[in-house]
Amino acid sequence: MCQLLGMNCNTPTDILFSFEGFHRRGGLTDHHADGWGIAFFEGRGCRLLLDDRSSVESPVAHLVRNYPIKSENVIAHIRKATQGEVNLANTHPFMREMWGKYWIFAHNGDLKDFTVAPGQYYRPVGSTDSERAFCHLLEKLRTRWDTQPELDELFAAVQEEADTLATHGTFNFILSNGDILLAHCSTQLHYIVRQAPFTKAHLVDDDVTVDFSSVTTPYDRVAVIATQPLTDNEAWTPFASGQLMLFRDGAPLLSTMMDAGA
Amino acid sequence: MCQLLGMNCNTPTDILFSFEGFHRRGGLTDHHADGWGIAFFEGRGCRLLLDDRSSVESPVAHLVRNYPIKSENVIAHIRKATQGEVNLANTHPFMREMWGKYWIFAHNGDLKDFTVAPGQYYRPVGSTDSERAFCHLLEKLRTRWDTQPELDELFAAVQEEADTLATHGTFNFILSNGDILLAHCSTQLHYIVRQAPFTKAHLVDDDVTVDFSSVTTPYDRVAVIATQPLTDNEAWTPFASGQLMLFRDGAPLLSTMMDAGA
Repeated sequence: MCQLLGMNCNTPTDILFSFEGFHRRGGLTDHHADGWGIAFFEGRGCRLLLDDRSSVESPVAHLVRNYPIKSENVIAHIRKATQGEVNLANTHPFMREMWGKYWIFAHNGDLKDFTVAPGQYYRPVGSTDSERAFCHLLEKLRTRWDTQPELDELFAAVQEEADTLATHGTFNFILSNGDILLAHCSTQLHYIVRQAPFTKAHLVDDDVTVDFSSVTTPYDRVAVIATQPLTDNEAWTPFASGQLMLFRDGAPLLSTMMDAGA
Repeated sequence: MCQLLGMNCNTPTDILFSFEGFHRRGGLTDHHADGWGIAFFEGRGCRLLLDDRSSVESPVAHLVRNYPIKSENVIAHIRKATQGEVNLANTHPFMREMWGKYWIFAHNGDLKDFTVAPGQYYRPVGSTDSERAFCHLLEKLRTRWDTQPELDELFAAVQEEADTLATHGTFNFILSNGDILLAHCSTQLHYIVRQAPFTKAHLVDDDVTVDFSSVTTPYDRVAVIATQPLTDNEAWTPFASGQLMLFRDGAPLLSTMMDAGA
């Protein structure tokens, strides 16, 4: 299965520590060698770095590890191909413009028998179920609104479309427009919010520890979302199956209310 | 003024030699230190690398110079900001999807008093005249056709829109969908087609010579388009003002018929 990583912050933050552990899941500690990608929002702009090689041997990953790009919203993905061959057009994250902003999407899972007619506004370029789902989701949102609606309306619409798409299979995804970050879980997704008082964190995949108190201010707040927890000494919260969360400024703002028994 | 560079080939080719001279125009031999970007098509996919720093000091430029990405269509741009502040959202080239393909656009010039209502299909994210012109051009094409038309029809429509946009100011641009590359000149643009028998070329901006005969096959054909000639020992052809050319497989396929007196 693919690996997802998202970060949403209240101040531009580099993702070097999380990426250090995450990128090792691309062919070293795990078997996800079918390409990878990372998108960094910087203001309204977006820097999208893609590689169809394993993230361990990628020169682009080397760049990311050595170039501390600061961003308030980041989405990264390591691919284990299930549908669509291994090539650049099929490499996540995918980017489209909607309502005058860039939207970035990465998916973990497999949607079976999911085909739709070409959209008016959004059409896939590659051959993955993931890009088809992304285009379909944006098409539904764009058809409903000509400009971006209020966040609670947007949240409800994404939940509705995610519920429908998830009937085709596994649909864990992260979606961002550089302001908000939406994360949906079908099977596996975890998050953590780091804020003052900051402590030390130790990576699962590598013997690396960072003392966040030395690199933050008391006002910083950072939400990290990942398929599996990236650190082994912090309390990550698992998403429930079917749960959608909307993060802004480093904290959850909206979440699906799950039944007590879920 | 900004600098444009385009390459269209019949076989995937690296752009290292041309980029070596070109990137030096970003703050070293010329004064274009307001960011730069380069897009490489690989099949249907596209690798878009942007940086809002000068290309001479950019770690992303360092990556490009040391990582021979092979591509059949490349567009690069070094920015001298005229409209819109220096940030990532205003950095060329710009990318959108149309008719199920990615389209990449870079502009050299300045369009005055050019504003349009938000499009149905395409809207700018940043604040440059260039991205507005790109979105407007795609909007006109997408409104006219639901799927990609024949190349001669597409060429005529781009010419028509380019003529109109050029009434607002200087509109040199390069546009590609990974298959064809279109180049339009208002004031300054040159091209060269390299094919067998290949010879040696020497950069204007740097004391570097490459012997293309040692790195090509007799079947290779490469068209390079640039604001100013990049080499000082080859015959570059200047575009006429108002001329649009469409390149495919490393050669001109369609061109505006210019009056003898033009």
